[in-house]
Amino acid sequence: MAKNSEEVHVTEDNLYEIARRRGFFYIGNEIYGGLTGFYDYGNIGTMLKRNIENLWRRHFLNLGENFSEIEPSNVMPEKAFVASGHIKNFVDPSVKCKKCGAWHRADQLIEKSLGIKAEGKSQEELTKLIKEHKIRCDKCRGELGEVRVLNMMFQIKMGSEGDTVAYLRPETAQGVYVNFIRQFNVMRSRLPMGLGIVGKAFRNEISPRQLLIRQREFTQAELQVFFDPSKVDECDNWDEVKDYGLMIMEKDGKTKKRKCSELAKSEGLPKFYLYNLAKSQEFFIGVLKFTEEKFRLRRLSEEEKAFYNKIHFDAEVFLDSLGEYKEVGGIHYRTDHDLLGHQEVSKKSHSISHEGRNFVPHVIELTVGIDRTFYAAMDLFYKPATEERDWEWFAFPPEMAPYAFAVFPLMGKDGLPELADKVYRMMKKGYGTVYDGSGSIGRRYARADEIGIPFAITIDYDSLKDNAVTIRKRDDTKQTRVKISDLEKEAERLCSGESR
Amino acid sequence: MAKNSEEVHVTEDNLYEIARRRGFFYIGNEIYGGLTGFYDYGNIGTMLKRNIENLWRRHFLNLGENFSEIEPSNVMPEKAFVASGHIKNFVDPSVKCKKCGAWHRADQLIEKSLGIKAEGKSQEELTKLIKEHKIRCDKCRGELGEVRVLNMMFQIKMGSEGDTVAYLRPETAQGVYVNFIRQFNVMRSRLPMGLGIVGKAFRNEISPRQLLIRQREFTQAELQVFFDPSKVDECDNWDEVKDYGLMIMEKDGKTKKRKCSELAKSEGLPKFYLYNLAKSQEFFIGVLKFTEEKFRLRRLSEEEKAFYNKIHFDAEVFLDSLGEYKEVGGIHYRTDHDLLGHQEVSKKSHSISHEGRNFVPHVIELTVGIDRTFYAAMDLFYKPATEERDWEWFAFPPEMAPYAFAVFPLMGKDGLPELADKVYRMMKKGYGTVYDGSGSIGRRYARADEIGIPFAITIDYDSLKDNAVTIRKRDDTKQTRVKISDLEKEAERLCSGESR
Repeated sequence: MAKNSEEVHVTEDNLYEIARRRGFFYIGNEIYGGLTGFYDYGNIGTMLKRNIENLWRRHFLNLGENFSEIEPSNVMPEKAFVASGHIKNFVDPSVKCKKCGAWHRADQLIEKSLGIKAEGKSQEELTKLIKEHKIRCDKCRGELGEVRVLNMMFQIKMGSEGDTVAYLRPETAQGVYVNFIRQFNVMRSRLPMGLGIVGKAFRNEISPRQLLIRQREFTQAELQVFFDPSKVDECDNWDEVKDYGLMIMEKDGKTKKRKCSELAKSEGLPKFYLYNLAKSQEFFIGVLKFTEEKFRLRRLSEEEKAFYNKIHFDAEVFLDSLGEYKEVGGIHYRTDHDLLGHQEVSKKSHSISHEGRNFVPHVIELTVGIDRTFYAAMDLFYKPATEERDWEWFAFPPEMAPYAFAVFPLMGKDGLPELADKVYRMMKKGYGTVYDGSGSIGRRYARADEIGIPFAITIDYDSLKDNAVTIRKRDDTKQTRVKISDLEKEAERLCSGESR
Repeated sequence: MAKNSEEVHVTEDNLYEIARRRGFFYIGNEIYGGLTGFYDYGNIGTMLKRNIENLWRRHFLNLGENFSEIEPSNVMPEKAFVASGHIKNFVDPSVKCKKCGAWHRADQLIEKSLGIKAEGKSQEELTKLIKEHKIRCDKCRGELGEVRVLNMMFQIKMGSEGDTVAYLRPETAQGVYVNFIRQFNVMRSRLPMGLGIVGKAFRNEISPRQLLIRQREFTQAELQVFFDPSKVDECDNWDEVKDYGLMIMEKDGKTKKRKCSELAKSEGLPKFYLYNLAKSQEFFIGVLKFTEEKFRLRRLSEEEKAFYNKIHFDAEVFLDSLGEYKEVGGIHYRTDHDLLGHQEVSKKSHSISHEGRNFVPHVIELTVGIDRTFYAAMDLFYKPATEERDWEWFAFPPEMAPYAFAVFPLMGKDGLPELADKVYRMMKKGYGTVYDGSGSIGRRYARADEIGIPFAITIDYDSLKDNAVTIRKRDDTKQTRVKISDLEKEAERLCSGESR
């Protein structure tokens, strides 16, 4: 990616300092020294996160007529994970230092030491590589033991004698698959059918790191699209996307914009898959307004991708604070792998009757990591302090920002707070709005900028006479005078992006 | 409660049959025979639940200027629960049948057999009662063993060797308390400060039962209000509630409406507590439109309430399907109990400086059980089939209903679907709206009624000429003709309840 070397780059520490101080997120249970891999969202972060989740709902649940959200439980029975393969395959290759006792992800250690891809290699292969290349503990340089595999699911024991074993789901997807038959009936047996979950997933990560990027508890927004596999190369809305440019990472590592119609031909990618690929990119670039140049779709190779994914692209974003591309979502053609797995273990047929034919539907899974997307938003919209503006700020789009408006009475007297309160209550009906009555106006602008509020409304002495207020735009700090009676209309215009 | 004996009463089975068939909720992981105590919300239920949660946010987070939602993790470290007392005290008295091996909640078994309150009694007292009264297993009549206490929290082991012990939180409240110091700084050190969580809690219930009422995973919406204890008898908004009538359960078991001002005098209840009590009742009656006559606030006696609650009222609703009052919320004056507990274990001072004084804030906790409230809504708004209307339906208020509008083209041809689609897209911008194009209009009304959609819009042949549609109201089945250009305004009027 082309980077401007003159730019001031934000760091992980930088973002975390603001996140903690302003209530975006922080290590949870701080008073007890925290719990590794678990972050809590503060008041500002919760609003931002909720907005991202709701934007996800609005975008993805509108991709088809028969698309809905469901909310299955976080705890699921063992059999479900026998069927999904998680009991057997959801393991982390780990290796312990014989000297200091620290555990490491074996594949990651090898990748770091040797610069080769090691994900997906067997326990034996990894041990061999470590021995052959004399890879050592990166904390104390001690010798490493044998590579072990550890299941990454958290086990729960329930009932009076703790003899019923269940698991916290490691991905929301399985919560959809176990309910497929029931929901297909409820939703009147029509394909394509989309079932989404915005919810928690839990993994016993060996080495949680990079703040919200690799946690042990995290939020996924996943949409499972069930469809007739004979129609994978058909797409009712093809016209909508055929000229849409996908940001594809090429073999040389560079990103090139390529039209859906071109990819259908050159790569033989099916139209229905491409449609979903385009809609996923659109979420990040069109809806969340992520910088197009920092976004890419990376196709996983045969070795990298899970064996059950027929086609697998990751959505990645270059994050300055981490100095690398990070996965924020994925577009997985999982075929009938999951439904067949559940059919086998549950002995319940997952074959459906649709338009006169019987078959097990295929699935395209569109997944978004909400916490990673949240962190990416903080990274991408971060603006350093400058000479003109003496503080750091975030350029979140209005729909994503914790609040869209801040309301300031110029002074805390002479009837200004009363009028400001009236304006505050008016704005609050339609938009996230915060009232701030203390400190200098400059200080209040700084406070608002720092959590990314796009518009600040000031009520001054003139307001008492002309019934108008000043709106200051965060991005260019320009101010305009607006009649209070026109505020609602102006707010709509501002938030729709017309003015930018 | 006065009941009309002529009414057809809904049953638990009745509600569950609709819930399962129409996608409100169902036992999760059905294909594996389910997991006891875990229910999944289907597509219709998720919309209804989300609406209840958002109505909670709008009501409770607006009770003060410095009130916000936060989102801490579900998994919390052991120390937090040492501090909260859950490790020691969060136990269920359980007793095993020597014959069939079934476990029972000892206190509940005694209550059922002897008709006395047994909650809160010690292990020894419970064993004594069982022996004395020869209480037996209610499944096989076998002899019962000694009463044991089992901790109801789910334990999680993490890290490579599983040696870090943590717990799934058994209540959302502790997620707020462990973050109190951090959030008090973030939120500019002003009291009263409100911190809410809408999230999951997990309990290893010995005998989950009554569908959503007693589950092992459930959603709580809890607001912790931190305030200066010297001001508990002050209330800025006292005028707002002083004449408000609280539905108080009297000593004789009857419910009587009593004004806040009266209760302040006769019961010596502090004003700030009464304000929060009134606002909690208002949520159920004013916002969710629960039947006032079926609602009551029940004060817990010294023996019933947790020792740390200085004042404890439960919000209860009479549910026909269960034939009894059920707790749907609580209003707990927890004092400084929790913050002092965390202060002691964490060794971090929880004393704050506020308006020139130093103290540990007190807490009033306003809690709502979202799943129970959901179930109560299904029970309260259920309407049986009648001669005129041949199907069961739900009278959910528009803001709570899964969809506010249904759009029907009279026929699937002659341009009607195209116009209906236009209307559908228009309505969808502002309201939950569903399109239904198949089956007779009667069948479509039935389908809409059954999930409680308040308004159905039909596009007929006249619509093509007069650009008007028919709106049919679910509650009285009356129909009115409305110009498409007036639809948005009419929708606003209908949903605000003006027309009812």
